[in-house]
Amino acid sequence: MRDACPWIERYLQVRAATLELAAPLSDEDCGAQSMPDASPVKWHLAHTTWFFETFILERYEEGFQPFHPAFRVLFNSYYNGVGDKHPRPQRGLLTRPSMAQVRAYRADVDARVSALAARAGSDAALAALLTLGLQHEQQHQELILTDVKHLLAQNPLAPAYLAQPAAQPGAVPAPVQAWQRFAGGLCEIGHTGDGFCFDNELPRHKVYVAPFELASRLVTNGEYLAFIESGGYRDPGLWLAEGWDWGRAQGIEAPLYWQRAGQGWSSFTLHGCQPLDLAAPVTHVSLYEADAYAHWAGARLPTEAEWEHAASDRRLQQMFGHCWQWTGSSYAPYPGFRPAAGAIGEYNGKFMVNQYVLRGASLATPPGHSRPSYRNFFPAGARWQFSGIRLAR
Amino acid sequence: MRDACPWIERYLQVRAATLELAAPLSDEDCGAQSMPDASPVKWHLAHTTWFFETFILERYEEGFQPFHPAFRVLFNSYYNGVGDKHPRPQRGLLTRPSMAQVRAYRADVDARVSALAARAGSDAALAALLTLGLQHEQQHQELILTDVKHLLAQNPLAPAYLAQPAAQPGAVPAPVQAWQRFAGGLCEIGHTGDGFCFDNELPRHKVYVAPFELASRLVTNGEYLAFIESGGYRDPGLWLAEGWDWGRAQGIEAPLYWQRAGQGWSSFTLHGCQPLDLAAPVTHVSLYEADAYAHWAGARLPTEAEWEHAASDRRLQQMFGHCWQWTGSSYAPYPGFRPAAGAIGEYNGKFMVNQYVLRGASLATPPGHSRPSYRNFFPAGARWQFSGIRLAR
Amino acid sequence: MRDACPWIERYLQVRAATLELAAPLSDEDCGAQSMPDASPVKWHLAHTTWFFETFILERYEEGFQPFHPAFRVLFNSYYNGVGDKHPRPQRGLLTRPSMAQVRAYRADVDARVSALAARAGSDAALAALLTLGLQHEQQHQELILTDVKHLLAQNPLAPAYLAQPAAQPGAVPAPVQAWQRFAGGLCEIGHTGDGFCFDNELPRHKVYVAPFELASRLVTNGEYLAFIESGGYRDPGLWLAEGWDWGRAQGIEAPLYWQRAGQGWSSFTLHGCQPLDLAAPVTHVSLYEADAYAHWAGARLPTEAEWEHAASDRRLQQMFGHCWQWTGSSYAPYPGFRPAAGAIGEYNGKFMVNQYVLRGASLATPPGHSRPSYRNFFPAGARWQFSGIRLAR
Amino acid sequence: MRDACPWIERYLQVRAATLELAAPLSDEDCGAQSMPDASPVKWHLAHTTWFFETFILERYEEGFQPFHPAFRVLFNSYYNGVGDKHPRPQRGLLTRPSMAQVRAYRADVDARVSALAARAGSDAALAALLTLGLQHEQQHQELILTDVKHLLAQNPLAPAYLAQPAAQPGAVPAPVQAWQRFAGGLCEIGHTGDGFCFDNELPRHKVYVAPFELASRLVTNGEYLAFIESGGYRDPGLWLAEGWDWGRAQGIEAPLYWQRAGQGWSSFTLHGCQPLDLAAPVTHVSLYEADAYAHWAGARLPTEAEWEHAASDRRLQQMFGHCWQWTGSSYAPYPGFRPAAGAIGEYNGKFMVNQYVLRGASLATPPGHSRPSYRNFFPAGARWQFSGIRLAR
Repeated sequence: MRDACPWIERYLQVRAATLELAAPLSDEDCGAQSMPDASPVKWHLAHTTWFFETFILERYEEGFQPFHPAFRVLFNSYYNGVGDKHPRPQRGLLTRPSMAQVRAYRADVDARVSALAARAGSDAALAALLTLGLQHEQQHQELILTDVKHLLAQNPLAPAYLAQPAAQPGAVPAPVQAWQRFAGGLCEIGHTGDGFCFDNELPRHKVYVAPFELASRLVTNGEYLAFIESGGYRDPGLWLAEGWDWGRAQGIEAPLYWQRAGQGWSSFTLHGCQPLDLAAPVTHVSLYEADAYAHWAGARLPTEAEWEHAASDRRLQQMFGHCWQWTGSSYAPYPGFRPAAGAIGEYNGKFMVNQYVLRGASLATPPGHSRPSYRNFFPAGARWQFSGIRLAR
Repeated sequence: MRDACPWIERYLQVRAATLELAAPLSDEDCGAQSMPDASPVKWHLAHTTWFFETFILERYEEGFQPFHPAFRVLFNSYYNGVGDKHPRPQRGLLTRPSMAQVRAYRADVDARVSALAARAGSDAALAALLTLGLQHEQQHQELILTDVKHLLAQNPLAPAYLAQPAAQPGAVPAPVQAWQRFAGGLCEIGHTGDGFCFDNELPRHKVYVAPFELASRLVTNGEYLAFIESGGYRDPGLWLAEGWDWGRAQGIEAPLYWQRAGQGWSSFTLHGCQPLDLAAPVTHVSLYEADAYAHWAGARLPTEAEWEHAASDRRLQQMFGHCWQWTGSSYAPYPGFRPAAGAIGEYNGKFMVNQYVLRGASLATPPGHSRPSYRNFFPAGARWQFSGIRLAR
Repeated sequence: MRDACPWIERYLQVRAATLELAAPLSDEDCGAQSMPDASPVKWHLAHTTWFFETFILERYEEGFQPFHPAFRVLFNSYYNGVGDKHPRPQRGLLTRPSMAQVRAYRADVDARVSALAARAGSDAALAALLTLGLQHEQQHQELILTDVKHLLAQNPLAPAYLAQPAAQPGAVPAPVQAWQRFAGGLCEIGHTGDGFCFDNELPRHKVYVAPFELASRLVTNGEYLAFIESGGYRDPGLWLAEGWDWGRAQGIEAPLYWQRAGQGWSSFTLHGCQPLDLAAPVTHVSLYEADAYAHWAGARLPTEAEWEHAASDRRLQQMFGHCWQWTGSSYAPYPGFRPAAGAIGEYNGKFMVNQYVLRGASLATPPGHSRPSYRNFFPAGARWQFSGIRLAR
Repeated sequence: MRDACPWIERYLQVRAATLELAAPLSDEDCGAQSMPDASPVKWHLAHTTWFFETFILERYEEGFQPFHPAFRVLFNSYYNGVGDKHPRPQRGLLTRPSMAQVRAYRADVDARVSALAARAGSDAALAALLTLGLQHEQQHQELILTDVKHLLAQNPLAPAYLAQPAAQPGAVPAPVQAWQRFAGGLCEIGHTGDGFCFDNELPRHKVYVAPFELASRLVTNGEYLAFIESGGYRDPGLWLAEGWDWGRAQGIEAPLYWQRAGQGWSSFTLHGCQPLDLAAPVTHVSLYEADAYAHWAGARLPTEAEWEHAASDRRLQQMFGHCWQWTGSSYAPYPGFRPAAGAIGEYNGKFMVNQYVLRGASLATPPGHSRPSYRNFFPAGARWQFSGIRLAR
């Protein structure tokens, strides 16, 4: 039984980390949905539990009985193979089940999964599902933070998610910016090694990369402010046509969460409203804005192959842990891509159209959840993620 | 000081009744907003408090300090004269202030208003504002019930607001239907007497009413079902053109909250999902549906003058306390109508376009809040109120 | 056979007048539709012909064969009793049938109706249908002008419909404005006499009218400009709530067709763009604007009963022939209103919701088509008709 | 002067071919716009003329005077560098200038360009602009056909653009389908040689292509019908998530222009409504449908690199001249892509987001306008182009 311990421990640790993210929040905070793209925290807590119940307990538990029969539909995100699903824009109307019931749901499923987890040492399929479920949980940990931030930002009281003080603006100066040159050539991208990866990172495959340069660090708030002040949002020549129309239609003049404050700017953060830190990487920009900025700076966005090819280079800073970095690559299957069989196969593949790949990891990404081959993806207009800019040329 | 007692008592009683309506609900239930037309219970609790704070404390309390400066905007419903207001469709995103804070807000304002209320015995203007505030509070008591019903109806779990059992379908048989004849002539409508009324019920004025007949009771669910089963929703000849388009665009085939259940029908109620009571008055129909039904039945809707003229007739049943009754009268100012000066004048007058008058009172109307001259009003497509049909010809 | 002559003559005269309106237009001009509310001229020409074909030839002509079987659907405006209809917003896509074919359609139907018209002298039902068809045709004559004006106004070239010069601004000074007092009382409105009227003008009925005053002339462009310049479009206190939202959402700051031109204003007219004539009646305002203006001027809009009651008063100027005058009365059936049997009954009755009555007649109304009991009606936001303001108080 | 002849001849020949496309159409046909994505024929005729006037005459003609000063805005499609532009959805409202005036515009510009064209023999920049203008004109020749087809398809009369009979269904049997294998490897794509290409085909660059197979011919209507009949439009498992939602929202159950006809299907064509030709390539499908079909068939769409790499293979049929072929490649700049300086640089680059590349050429593509490196592009939901499917695996 020794083998089982690491699985259970790992499982309970990840699950506990999720609950911890909800700790600073009231039940009311956990129930609201600020836009169709975002979900209530309570829904995240329940959906990640649903994932273990549906894909593990239902298969492995003898005499399986669902915790609540209606939850199969209520907390199904997008798996048509599992059946019906509650309409996404109405997740915020589910005042029942209560937070207390969802906590009970989590506790029940945790106990039952823990009872099975020991078997994972000798059952590779179970081990794979457990691992997937935990990686999935970690993805939702990041979404909890981005969705809570978006919700609190809609509130004129500008409440802080975290009470402790944020870093002082400028306390951490921006690293010096340099251009790092790469020879490229015929190289390989895609996951390699024994560790976990999502299906969309496979198969590892050859790709030809022309010589290129990558900025050694991310674009800062200060640099982005110069773009704004030089009229960047008013010059259609800098923008993709669709991006220009998008910005006009929505009256966009700065990154999401920026607000003019007297002579300067402030920005809404998880610590509440804060003076803009000019030295920190710019975040909460869309692909359209990232592309326009790059154009203005005489550069361009990297492709995902360039980014991954360069990811191991020591000279590059802020690759992981600051913000996701838009690439110019649309989200598409790698040559030879094969999604898993059954409903689990809907995890990634069916989203491979009209989205763009982001690389790296953000300050909201759980430790251990990032790697060079990781492919995050969002539509070109998405801004509520921690998304920033690294230039290429 | 004897005089003060009835004011304080009355004030505290109405205010307590509002809180009681929230008793069966969790904080989560109280925060959600199911559509822009409806408001969260928490918002109702805060807005009614804001009304007393803004229109009474601010004028009468020495050294007035607002409970919270941001509340002036957050809980302003539509009074431009008071200043900015939080966007209506975003009321459900105000997870802060919390329910606890809103309860504290109520308690604080209640204490301060109580301290002033004694003066109302000798200050007619204060007495009038206190009365208006309490009538306003009672209107929101009804809205709390209709809005909660709408919210819970969106939940696939179909939760009941009230645990106690509903009346058995058919337990109360429908009264016999008869046509009551009225000679009409030159008569008067509008409020009369010393009691309270809203400004839109004044001035009492002459109106000529041609001879007419009114149904002695409301249209029942059973009768409305016959309309459905005879194809009423599929025959454009029965409908106002706008009503026909409205029904087609929204796929409407029955009153709001009706659901097919096996061979029959059930209906979502404050007691949860219940078999349809064929003897009970039909409710949750729009003006369009009411008009089409009347057309089908060879009748028409009454005008508000007819309704009010007949309201004192003893032969008429179900005039008050079952459901609001659509009239064919658009909501318009009475001849000589004068709204109050200042922001309070926005209470009624500015809504007098593209709405229709409903008369009577519903099961959700607080006791003592109904009278023959009362003018309720909603757009022709509104269905979430307890709105029904009394025929005329 | 002597009797027949006036019918044929009258018929051909009205029909010819319609074609004359299309004379200044190219086939291209006649085919375009500038918004769903407006129709192409070609469609008007065909639909009025369809009216005679469907409601007269089909009933009275032996061995009736339709001119083209598809026209029954293509040129049906809104008569569900006749069957399917082409979607209104797509009328501008009907490049076939061509204008030439539609002219041929008119000629064919004209010949066939002329052959029948002689019978109208002895067949009252036929006479009534012929009369209705011609009144209908005249209504569309006015719509042709308002719809062409709207179409040409969308064109940056600002083309003139009429080549001849417009009246010089100020050439006709505004009459002196006075308030005319009316005692009101129990009076009658609705059509009376032997002449033609639409079903919505009947039955004539008693109505009680309180004493009132009516402005002796219409509000002028100059007076309306003063409202604009005093900030009328920026003061929510003057507006119906729905009107305020309407104006904000659409960025409305002046009547339709007004444009700032240097220091002053110009206005797009059937003669092209012209300097604003300050002495002429303001037109192309919505009910919302008319109501806000009246509020600003310390007055109100008349009810339709007031207007009709006063219509025979010689002291009142500009009652007919300048512009339609918004009333505060919603469009509703008169007591005892009975629409005609069959599809013809859809002519008026089914539109009696969420529209407001306009009285009078405009410069685009054909001679002989106006009378005191005439009820025109449009939604509160409509502006492309020649709609203006007469004040009451 | 001998040198000049070929330029003038070529110019006049292409320009005449455009006018010939309008020959079967009335002025009314030429003015209508069936949706914002499509343009009136008259607009195409004027815009292509505007292109020569703006980019050639304005630079090269001494004492240049525009044909009409307003045309600069009216017929600017999307060049922000040139200035304002008339809103795209309102192109169908431009009944002025008339077709006659637009023909005069064409004649005038043709004469003036012809007078300059001789210089192109010795002026490489002028030669390049002339060539670009003619290629641009040819692109609009194809759009004229797709836009006219879409317009006529909206007409219940289903008018034929071409009077002559269409090919008999099945008259041309489908070629045998085979899978052609390609070894791939490090290869080059992008335009090569001296001939004309658009900037988006450059620079030619290395790309690594894994081994793949390509279908020897296009998917036929008959094969696509089997997909429909097997429930392809009702199985979410076959679809990209966005494609599934797109199809549901629009009620899509077959390619554009297909209609059920008795037991079988017909299809609206430029020859009017015709029985579906089961042997012909399926066209008028979106990327979503193409991808779902490929999924159903156990295959996938080719990448644009695969397609171009294979394009010279003699075993492949129907590569050009039947229909454009969706690829799985999003439209993105080639490595090292540089748009032209000035407004001309807006031709292609700014559209490189959220569009997908189509390769090949259609029956509507003018002769001489196709080549292996040609990159056509449309959004994933576009269906009114002649777009079909070639499978890969």
